[in-house]
Order: sequence, then structure tokens, then C-alpha cells
Amino acid sequence: MKIIPVKLGPRSYDIHIEPGLLKTLPKHLASFNKGQQWIILSQPDIIQLIGNDLQNSLLKSGFYCSIIPIPNGERAKSFDQYQKIIEAMVQAGCDRSTTLLALGGGVTGDLTGFIAATYMRGVDYFQIPTTLLAMVDSSIGGKTAINLKMGKNLVGSFYQPKGVWIDPDLLTSLPREERISGIGEIIKYGAIRDAPFLETLSTWLDHLETFPFTKAIEHSCTIKSEIVAKDEQEDHLRMILNFGHTIGHALEAHLQYGGLRHGDAVSYGMLCAGWISEQTGLLNSEERQFLEDTISKLPSPSLPDIDPNGVLQHISSDKKYRDGHLNYVLLSGLGNAVISNQISMALIAESLKVIL
Amino acid sequence: MKIIPVKLGPRSYDIHIEPGLLKTLPKHLASFNKGQQWIILSQPDIIQLIGNDLQNSLLKSGFYCSIIPIPNGERAKSFDQYQKIIEAMVQAGCDRSTTLLALGGGVTGDLTGFIAATYMRGVDYFQIPTTLLAMVDSSIGGKTAINLKMGKNLVGSFYQPKGVWIDPDLLTSLPREERISGIGEIIKYGAIRDAPFLETLSTWLDHLETFPFTKAIEHSCTIKSEIVAKDEQEDHLRMILNFGHTIGHALEAHLQYGGLRHGDAVSYGMLCAGWISEQTGLLNSEERQFLEDTISKLPSPSLPDIDPNGVLQHISSDKKYRDGHLNYVLLSGLGNAVISNQISMALIAESLKVIL
Repeated sequence: MKIIPVKLGPRSYDIHIEPGLLKTLPKHLASFNKGQQWIILSQPDIIQLIGNDLQNSLLKSGFYCSIIPIPNGERAKSFDQYQKIIEAMVQAGCDRSTTLLALGGGVTGDLTGFIAATYMRGVDYFQIPTTLLAMVDSSIGGKTAINLKMGKNLVGSFYQPKGVWIDPDLLTSLPREERISGIGEIIKYGAIRDAPFLETLSTWLDHLETFPFTKAIEHSCTIKSEIVAKDEQEDHLRMILNFGHTIGHALEAHLQYGGLRHGDAVSYGMLCAGWISEQTGLLNSEERQFLEDTISKLPSPSLPDIDPNGVLQHISSDKKYRDGHLNYVLLSGLGNAVISNQISMALIAESLKVIL
Repeated sequence: MKIIPVKLGPRSYDIHIEPGLLKTLPKHLASFNKGQQWIILSQPDIIQLIGNDLQNSLLKSGFYCSIIPIPNGERAKSFDQYQKIIEAMVQAGCDRSTTLLALGGGVTGDLTGFIAATYMRGVDYFQIPTTLLAMVDSSIGGKTAINLKMGKNLVGSFYQPKGVWIDPDLLTSLPREERISGIGEIIKYGAIRDAPFLETLSTWLDHLETFPFTKAIEHSCTIKSEIVAKDEQEDHLRMILNFGHTIGHALEAHLQYGGLRHGDAVSYGMLCAGWISEQTGLLNSEERQFLEDTISKLPSPSLPDIDPNGVLQHISSDKKYRDGHLNYVLLSGLGNAVISNQISMALIAESLKVIL
């Protein structure tokens, strides 16, 4: 089993990665079991697929464990759902010793983390990510959140889990497109922090059917944990994780979060950010081309007909842009992200021509 | 100006105490003003009394400052109000740089702190307590919370303010009974941690009309900050702050939080806890008598007719008691609190005879 520490002083924890891990989880969690109540938070599909089995194996190993289901999709992160689950926990007699297990993708992890952060001023929780995106990104680093009608992730906190348990075998139950999409975020780690890894990824992508997911997850988690350890609350360095996300988020928002997977949106965003990096003299054309070639090896779905102005609208209406604080993540050489607040809307608009 | 540090590593801050402080607050806060949005959260009566003036003086000093009113009374701490204020902040364009000022008593401080803890994963806030209870207790230590219909303070977090600003002159605007009640919590600090302070308090209480509130607040804040610094998240030592609170809370709950001020309830609770301490051999009769005499110098309102079983019901229905984990704070000598989980319901019932 690969163990990657996230070094955050008293809030430190380990990321554990091993194919088949889910089956042996009760053994690994045993040292955390003091007879308290354990609650699995998960969405119906995941509960059917693996949640019920996990509960049974925990029960057999002497854990006092129940499941609280949360709705499918992003609406699980609503204020109403947050309140409902908190109330269900009170009714179930949960106290400060209760421990939560977030079994699912980013939505489940974000919601569970925020509940853990705020239930009776904080209880323990573990992340058990089931999607590639959650395994390499959202399950690590303690960003928790719920949505308001006015926008995503407006309410939340930084609250670290007590551990992250990753079973890459779970990926086989995902649709192929879902796995492909997640590779976009993995390319991001190479691009912002590790040029040799980016080169390795590029060769791996030549044979997509044998893509070594476990190795790629291990490497991505190592990079993410190092960045989080240096800047837990995203005061500066952690912002580089947003490479490809300015345009990526705008594409998703413009398509109302229905038309494009997050990883694919980030891939398109990275193409634009790479182009801007070249325009501003930070990346030479060879480097930019290498980034583009690597991303293009992913069989990402082509974009639907999109009005560039619609996408730009989402960027310019962002308060951060209005105040002139838009932090744009660029590459100053491959594997070396930098942050600029000098990127004009005109240049961003022009960069969209690369993808639209 | 008296400055008392709360030493919590990267979350350290200072408590500032000075009569008339409110008038010079803009000067003191100037170093924290980077042009961000400042929001005063306060209840209507306090806004009229001092909130509008504070806003005006901040505006004059170049702060971009507005007021968001919250309802009077405990219902300000409801889930609905929490959501409403968060939404109002989004609409007002608040971002991660926004700074909150909690101007009021414990309800305002608890709610504001929880909003600060969770708005966009955390913004800065300052406590400006206006009641004696808030000055010596709730404004210090970062306990934030809101209520559910099923119980008080079930949702919250530990989230420290960036500073506490105490103006004892504000106490003169409080009803006399409110000030008297708060002295109960001050006596508590002497009882649990500082026998000489308890003796001093006893002599001060012989001349209640000249009670030196500023000195008493300074001393109380020093004790509280020392305890919080040693046990931020109430894993052990911080529990001693609950001296007098087991029965105190039960009295308040039995009277549905309408019939008794919190400080008075704590005073009655301390009389019972002192009696139990003597019964269990932790306090000699002379010490117990001194504690009782000191508390009795407070002209606390007499209790209405109360059925002891109703009060006991509230203690025994507490989940902590059912699980056998009820941590009862007792005194092993004056100024030295200890925690026992060996106190039987029968002994607690008997102790009620001291006050009912």
C-alpha cells in the first residue's frame, strides 16, 4: 500500500492508495474505532454498488455503523440537504465522537466534510473517493463546501479529514468517459509542478487502454499533498491548482453544469492558458505545443456550439475580475506555474479561439 | 489599555480592555483596514444605542462599513437567520477579504462567529461584546454556534476572532440585574482557578455599588484566555469552565430560557456543585461555606416554584448522562476545579435541596 503524508502539524493525515483497498478497510480503520457511531454518507447509486457491502463488513468487524443517504447530483450540496442531514444525525443520537465516512465523488466529499466541520463544532471524518477526480483532487486538502442558489461553494470551511482511502479498482465501475475526463486534472499536476511527470504522462497516453491509473493517482496525490502542506488555506501557492480552471469553470457555468465534465472543461481551459502563457512570453512555442499535444491525446468530447461572449460573460461578471484581482494561473516553462493578475479580458477572449 | 494575549499559535489574538474604548475603536482597527468591506452584525436595540455611531465613526475614518441587522433574542441563532445573513452578504458583494464585527451579547457573538467561520471558507471577525457575560466569557475562545429546533448550539465550530475589544463603559447602559447576573460567571473564575481572586471578589461584593467591573473583567479574561490557550477545543481542561453549568443549564431549560438569567442560573448551579464537592470530600465545610457566602452576597432573584424532578429530567435526558459520561465539575479546594464522571443522579437530586 502506498502511503502519502499530508503534513499539516496537528491536522496531519495520510493518503492510502491500493487496488482492492475497500475490502480491507475495516482492518485499516480498526485503530480509529473506540465504539463510537460511524455514519456512511453516500448517494443511492454508490450505496447500491459498494456502500451496503462496506457497511456490512464494518458491522461484522464490530463497528457501530449506519448509512445516511444523500440525493444524487449537485443538489446534495444544497443548504436544505445540509440541514436535513444534520437533523437526521441529531435524531440518530450522534455526538462529538461520531465519525463520518464520505463515500463518493466530489459532491459527497464536500458535503460530508462541511457537516463534519460544523456538527457539534466538529467531528472526525474520512474520505473514500470513488471517482478519479475525487481521488486526485477534491478528497485531499480539506476544502469543504455547500452551494447557495446564488453560486457554488459560497459556504464552507477548511477542515481536514483524518485520512483518505483510495481504491483505484473502483474506477472500473465508472463509465470510460468519466475516467478519461479525470485524466485532465492529472495532466494539470504535471503541467504546474512536474515536467518529467508530464512527459511520462504523454507516453502513457499513447496507450490509453493500459493507462496506469494507480501510478498516476499516487503521483498526483503526492504533488497535491505537498502544495496543500505549504498553503493550507489557499493564500497563494495553492492557487496554482486552478490552472485551466478560469476558462474551465466559465465553460461549465455557461453550459449550466450539464454539458461538460469537469475534467474535460479543465483540459480545454489548459489549452487556452497555455496559449496565453506563450503570448506573454512565459512559454516557448515548443513547450506550448508539447502541452497541447499531450492534452490532445485525450479523446475528450468536442465542444458544442458555444458563443464566446457567453463564456466571457461568466469570467467578467466574476467579482474577482471586476475588482482587478483575477489571478490567472500561467506556466513559466512546463512544470512551473506562476500567477498573474495582469491578464486582460481581450487576451482571454482571444485565447478562446484555440478551442471554439 | 489592558491587553491580554490569547496564545494559540497562528490563531493568537489579543483581548483589549479600556473604559471608553468604543469611541477610539476606528483608530485601533486602522491597521486591519486594507480597504475591504466591513460589516457590523448587531441587534436592533444595540444598533440604535451604539451601532449607528460606531458605523459613522468607522466611515469617517475611511472604513467601507455597513450594518446587517439580526433579530432580537435567541431566535437570531436559527438556521434560517444564518442562511438569510449569508445570502445578504453575497448580495452585498462580500468576499474572502470581508471583515465582520460582532457588536452585542453572546447571541450576536455566536452567530457572527459561525458566519465568519463558514462564509467562503472563513473570513476575519472581531468581537465587541456589550454584555458582562459576553465580555468575560462568550467573546473569548472561538466557540461559535447556531441552534436547531432540537437543541441549542448543535451546529457550530471552533473559529477564533482576530481580536476582542471590551469597553466596560457599555455596562452602564445595561439594567442593574443584568450586570449583577454576570458577576455569577466572574465568581466562577475565582472558584475554579484562583482562590485569592475569589477572596478579593468577596470583599468587592460587600459594596456592590462600587464593584470594580473593569478590574473584574481583566482578571476573568486573563483566566479564561489561559484555559483556552491550553485546551482550545474543549478536550479536557476547558470543561472546568462548566462549573455550575450542569444544574444551571437544567434550570434554564426547565424554565424554557425565559425565567432566569444565565449568570443567576450558574450561581445557583455553583451552590449545588459546592455542596456535592463537600459531600464527596473534596471541599471542607469552611470552604464550601465561603463559596456559598460569596455567591449569596449577590442579590440574585429568588427562584420560582420549581419541581425538582423537572430539573433532573433535563439532566438525565442528556445523552451524555445516559452514556455514563456526564462530566461533573467539582472543586477540590477553592480555586482548583476537578472533573468527575462518578456523580450519581441520586446525589445530584439531593443537591437540589440547597436551592429549591
